[in-house]
Amino acid sequence: MASDPVFHPWVAQAKAAPVVVAGGAGAWFWTREGERFLDLHAQLGNLHLGHQHPAVVAAVTHQAGRMCTLAPSFGAEVRERAARMILELAPPGARSVLFTTGGADAVEHALRMARCVTGRPKVLAAHRSYHGATEGAIGVTGDPRRWAVPGAGAGTVRFFGPYLYRSEFHATSEEQEGERALAHLRRLLELEGPHTVAAVIVEPVVGSNGVLVPPEGYLAGVRALCDEHGILLVADEVMTGFGRCGAWFACDLWGVRPDLLTFAKGVNSGYVPVGGVVVGERVAEHFAERPYPGGLTYSGHPLACASIVASLTVLEEDGLVDRAADLGERVVRPLLTELAGHLPVVGEVRGRGLAWALELVADRATRAPLAPYAAPGRVHPRMAEVLSACRARGVWPFVAANRVHLFPPLVITEDDLCTGIAAVGAALTLEDS
Amino acid sequence: MASDPVFHPWVAQAKAAPVVVAGGAGAWFWTREGERFLDLHAQLGNLHLGHQHPAVVAAVTHQAGRMCTLAPSFGAEVRERAARMILELAPPGARSVLFTTGGADAVEHALRMARCVTGRPKVLAAHRSYHGATEGAIGVTGDPRRWAVPGAGAGTVRFFGPYLYRSEFHATSEEQEGERALAHLRRLLELEGPHTVAAVIVEPVVGSNGVLVPPEGYLAGVRALCDEHGILLVADEVMTGFGRCGAWFACDLWGVRPDLLTFAKGVNSGYVPVGGVVVGERVAEHFAERPYPGGLTYSGHPLACASIVASLTVLEEDGLVDRAADLGERVVRPLLTELAGHLPVVGEVRGRGLAWALELVADRATRAPLAPYAAPGRVHPRMAEVLSACRARGVWPFVAANRVHLFPPLVITEDDLCTGIAAVGAALTLEDS
Repeated sequence: MASDPVFHPWVAQAKAAPVVVAGGAGAWFWTREGERFLDLHAQLGNLHLGHQHPAVVAAVTHQAGRMCTLAPSFGAEVRERAARMILELAPPGARSVLFTTGGADAVEHALRMARCVTGRPKVLAAHRSYHGATEGAIGVTGDPRRWAVPGAGAGTVRFFGPYLYRSEFHATSEEQEGERALAHLRRLLELEGPHTVAAVIVEPVVGSNGVLVPPEGYLAGVRALCDEHGILLVADEVMTGFGRCGAWFACDLWGVRPDLLTFAKGVNSGYVPVGGVVVGERVAEHFAERPYPGGLTYSGHPLACASIVASLTVLEEDGLVDRAADLGERVVRPLLTELAGHLPVVGEVRGRGLAWALELVADRATRAPLAPYAAPGRVHPRMAEVLSACRARGVWPFVAANRVHLFPPLVITEDDLCTGIAAVGAALTLEDS
Repeated sequence: MASDPVFHPWVAQAKAAPVVVAGGAGAWFWTREGERFLDLHAQLGNLHLGHQHPAVVAAVTHQAGRMCTLAPSFGAEVRERAARMILELAPPGARSVLFTTGGADAVEHALRMARCVTGRPKVLAAHRSYHGATEGAIGVTGDPRRWAVPGAGAGTVRFFGPYLYRSEFHATSEEQEGERALAHLRRLLELEGPHTVAAVIVEPVVGSNGVLVPPEGYLAGVRALCDEHGILLVADEVMTGFGRCGAWFACDLWGVRPDLLTFAKGVNSGYVPVGGVVVGERVAEHFAERPYPGGLTYSGHPLACASIVASLTVLEEDGLVDRAADLGERVVRPLLTELAGHLPVVGEVRGRGLAWALELVADRATRAPLAPYAAPGRVHPRMAEVLSACRARGVWPFVAANRVHLFPPLVITEDDLCTGIAAVGAALTLEDS
C-alpha cells in the first residue's frame, strides 16, 4: 500500500489514519464506507450553513464561470459587495475590510495594524486562547499548541481571563470573577507600562479552549481599560463571528465595539478559504495617507467573496442568527443541564447560541479533570473512549483536553439537535458507569 | 460617494483608487469601462493558465457540487489525488504535501518543520528575496516590505546571493560571481556556527526582487554546504513552481533536491486560494512518530485540491512547461536583447522560461538605477511613467523599484507575446527620449 501523500496537521503522520469522507448535506456527512454522522463539530466550527448549502454552491459555481481570481491591486464588484455586507453587519464603527486567506493571517494583520497605529511593541493576550498557527498568531495563542514554537510571541504578555469554574482569582460568583479578572488586567497593564501596549486581543467568547463566556460587564471593562490608555481592542471572532453565539458577533452580546475584528469560518462556512480584518475608524484614519505594510496575493479573492455574499444573504434571510440564540436557550441549555444533573462526569456545562462545551471531571468535588491539559492531536485515552462512544452512536463532536464541544451547523433541525445531545449523553453514561 | 469598503494591501488607502476589472480570458483582461489589457503581470505571477481556463473552471464547478469543504483531520479522495500529482512532479525525494492557504503560511510551516527536525534556531535567508508577509515569512524576507515589521525575524541571518549586475563580490563573470557567493555563504556559516542553523531558504530563481537567475553550480553548491552541516535546504518556489521558469520547478534547472519546497500561485493559477509544502524524506521521517505542531482549518481544502488536479493536468497535457522554456529562449530572450541593444535605459535583461525582468538605469556606464530601491506600493514617478506608457499601449506589466517584470500566462499566444514585448519597448523608447 502506498503511504499517505497528505501531511496531516497537528498529529504524528504514522498515526493519522483519517476517516475518508465522501459527502455531506446539512448537518450530516458520510464516509466512503457509507457510515453517516451528525456533524456536531461543523468541520472545526466552520459550517454555519452545513454541508453543501445549495445557495452557496450556486454562488461559487456562478462566480467560477465569471472570474476566479484577481490580484488585490485591482477592484472587483464582488469584492466590494462582500466588504459592504460585512461592514453593515459588523459592530458600529467599522470602516473597511482587509481580506486574508484565513483566521491566522487575519490575526497577524490586525496585530501589525495595532503596532503601526500605536507605535507600541506589546500585545496582551489571554491564557486559554487560540488565535491561529502562523508565527504571529501562535505567538499570541495561549494554549499548548504554542509550546512547540517557543521562539514565537516576542512582545506578548499573557493575562488570565474570567473562568469561574477554575478561577485564578478565587472568586465564588460570576460577578466577582468578572470584577477580579478586570482588576488583574488593570494591575498587569500598570506593571507592563500601559504606554508600551499596542493591543489587547480577546476571543469575546473563548472558542476551542472551552467556550468560556465572560461575565456581564467584563468585555465592556476591557474596552474601558483600552480607552483609558489608548490601547486598541482586537476581537478575534474567527470562531464566534456571523451568528455562532446567537448574535452576529460575540461582541454584540455586550454591545462592545472593537477597534479591529478578525473573522473567517462562519463568514462563508469555509466553502472557499478566506478570512479578514474589520478595520475600525482609528486604524482606517491612520492608514488613509500611510501605506499599510502588509498584503497577500489572494486578498479579496473573487470566488471567496462570492461565497461570502451568498452565505451572509442566507444567514440574514433565514434568520439563522436569531434561531441559534433561540435553540441555544430553549433547547440546548435545558438538555445539557439535565444531562449534567444525572451524569457526575459532567463538571460544568457552558455555552451561548450554538457553541457549547461539557467539561468532564474525574471527581466533581475536587473538579479534577478527566484528562490533563494537552494539545489537540494528543487525545487522552479516556477522551478517545468518549469520542468513540459518540461515533458509535452516529454523532461526531469535537474533543479537546477534558472537554466535549458541540458546535452544530446553525441549520441543524431541532430534532437532530435533540437526538444528537441524547446520543452524547448516552456516550457519557458509559463513561460514568 | 461612499468610501471604499475594501482595505487594500501595501498602499495608503486614500490613494488606492483601483482599476475595476470586469473579466478576463486567457492572457487578456478588461475593465468595467471596456478597456482591454494584455496581462504581462499574470495577477502577481498567479495565472499560469491565464484567466478563466475552461478545464479549471469546470473542475471547480464540479467539486463545488460534490464537497466544498472538509476539516483537515478527515481524508478526501480529491485531497489525496492532488497531493499525489504534486509528488509525482516534484524533485525526487518528495514524500508528502502539507497544504496551506497560500505561499506565506507555506514558508512559515517549512521553517517550523526545519527548526523541529534540527533542533536549531537560525535560518539563513537572502537579501533581495520575498517569502510572504505573515510574521514568520516577512521575518526571512529580504526586501523593503520587511522594514515596517522590525520585530520580525528573530533567528534570521541574511546573506547575499549571486547578482552579477550589482555584484557584492566585485566579480566580473557569472562563474566568478557564483564561486564567490558560495564562498561568502560558507564564511557566514562558519561565523554563525553551522550547528546553530536549521535551514537555508532560497528562491532558486529570485522572483519579485528582480528575476535573479543564479550561475551554473550555485544552487548545487548551496545544497552541498547544507549537507556538510546537516542543514535543511528550503526552496521557496511560490513564484517559480509548476513551469514558470520552463521546468516544473526552478530546482530542476540544476537538478537540485531541496528538503522542503514551498508552492502556491502556479499550482492552480490561484483559482482557489491554496499553497503548500512538499515534504522530503528527512522531514517526513522525523514527523512519522512525532506530532507536527502546526495546522490550519483550510488545509487540503477540497475545492482547492480539485483546481490543482485540473491545473496540473492541463499543464501536463498541453506541454506548457516545455512551451515556456521554448518561448523564453526562442522568442523572449532575442526580443528583449534586441530592445536592450537600442534602448540605453535598459541596463540588463534577465530571465528564464516566462519570467523576465528589465532593469532600468539612468546611466548605463555607472548602472545608476532609474528609481531607488523601494517597497512595492511606493512606485517612483519615473517608473509610474513607464507603467502608464505601457498601459496606454494596452499591456500591463509588473513594476518594482527600477524594474519592469514580464510574467505572462504560460498560455499566451506567440503573437501576443511578441506584440506585448514590442509595446513595452515602445513605452521605454519614450523614457529614453
